[in-house]
Amino acid sequence: MSERIWTAALVVIGDEILSGRTHDKNIAQVASWLQVQGIRLMEVRVVPDVEERIAEAVNALRSTHDYLFTTGGIGPTHDDITVDAVAKALGVPVVEHPEARRILEDFYAARGGLNPARLRMARVPQGADLIPNKMSGAPGIRVGNLFMMAGVPAITAQMLDALTGTLEGGAPLLSETVGGWVQESHVADILREVETAHPSCQIGSYPFFREGRTGANFVIRSTDPDELERCVDALTDALREAGQDVTPGGV
Amino acid sequence: MSERIWTAALVVIGDEILSGRTHDKNIAQVASWLQVQGIRLMEVRVVPDVEERIAEAVNALRSTHDYLFTTGGIGPTHDDITVDAVAKALGVPVVEHPEARRILEDFYAARGGLNPARLRMARVPQGADLIPNKMSGAPGIRVGNLFMMAGVPAITAQMLDALTGTLEGGAPLLSETVGGWVQESHVADILREVETAHPSCQIGSYPFFREGRTGANFVIRSTDPDELERCVDALTDALREAGQDVTPGGV
Repeated sequence: MSERIWTAALVVIGDEILSGRTHDKNIAQVASWLQVQGIRLMEVRVVPDVEERIAEAVNALRSTHDYLFTTGGIGPTHDDITVDAVAKALGVPVVEHPEARRILEDFYAARGGLNPARLRMARVPQGADLIPNKMSGAPGIRVGNLFMMAGVPAITAQMLDALTGTLEGGAPLLSETVGGWVQESHVADILREVETAHPSCQIGSYPFFREGRTGANFVIRSTDPDELERCVDALTDALREAGQDVTPGGV
Repeated sequence: MSERIWTAALVVIGDEILSGRTHDKNIAQVASWLQVQGIRLMEVRVVPDVEERIAEAVNALRSTHDYLFTTGGIGPTHDDITVDAVAKALGVPVVEHPEARRILEDFYAARGGLNPARLRMARVPQGADLIPNKMSGAPGIRVGNLFMMAGVPAITAQMLDALTGTLEGGAPLLSETVGGWVQESHVADILREVETAHPSCQIGSYPFFREGRTGANFVIRSTDPDELERCVDALTDALREAGQDVTPGGV
């Protein structure tokens, strides 16, 4: 019996990532959160602050995945164009969301009040709902299977927190790691054979260089906890029989 | 006169990034390196270790950009399928590169010799050249405008180093930062007006939260150093006139 797999994609919007100025933290954050929800992140695209590029990525990914997330470009300044780009992609107008306006009015009441820039953050594609954000007032935006979140990772974390447990997913993809000061090119046959013998598991090999030495961690993934354990045991035994000193949990 | 802009895209190959297990470092590394070469990174796609997905991303991006880079999936194990996927995308066979074989023979001479797994790293799409890699022997691969590099960031760094100065680019996109404990929603009009008055410059606004306080850095970008300076000065003056305490270089 093969179970339904729920999938997601992520569009990261930001010239600052593409210029190398800012190291993205949202890919790993969204990826880890999706794992726990039982949803598989299948693709990420990083695109510039250009309306056509954002709309193109959104349209390419929203119909091919169960969920689509975006990060970035929903703030108050002229370079925040995600709402316009998504509305364009969906073919709907941009409207002011009354509840978003009320949230912003409350949030800014003691902070100098609303101004046109702040009010920009109440704009949503028609038909959208809000994703609460305790930190900065301005909400995230949900429209259908599309979730627009902030670029600032701490705010995105708040929005993900608000969404936790609300999206339907499948069995989470579980993973276990085995690793050591092993050269992956010494054990490539073992990896392939153990993977073949456990069809519901995938084994990834991740080499590293530390302190001038070569090692590798082997990550075994499966939605079936029993089969995962059997595969981890089989791999550990096979590596040790081949004289490799590996540690559960990896190094 | 508008100058030719050279563009690049990057395909990051790796289940470990999409699962959240590994935080990608190659996007920022490749992005920063490209800036110095005068090449603009226009899009990044992160795709899983699935041949069709890799081939699809490669074909979507290789003809729309001057250069296409990939990271990941060129090692010795069963999950290293980038060469096969790229060959498929290009419609060419995979062949053994004699120089790559020689490099691997030399590198592994004192490390137990070549074995079938290690020899996998001599496989290239037909017509490819090699990108030297001092660290681990196994070379990167160049075929036409497509550059296949390692997933391990330290090895990718070696390959980028070998490519430094060899790719034609345009005038580098210069950037300057001005910032402070400013709420971007207070100064949105200023940002827009200064940008409009300096058509060769772009201004990005990057809010942050630190120590419980709100701030923002404003990044001004241009290929024209004089115009960049004028825009930085105009923005700094306008922000200070509005009573905002901003610092050159940002905070």
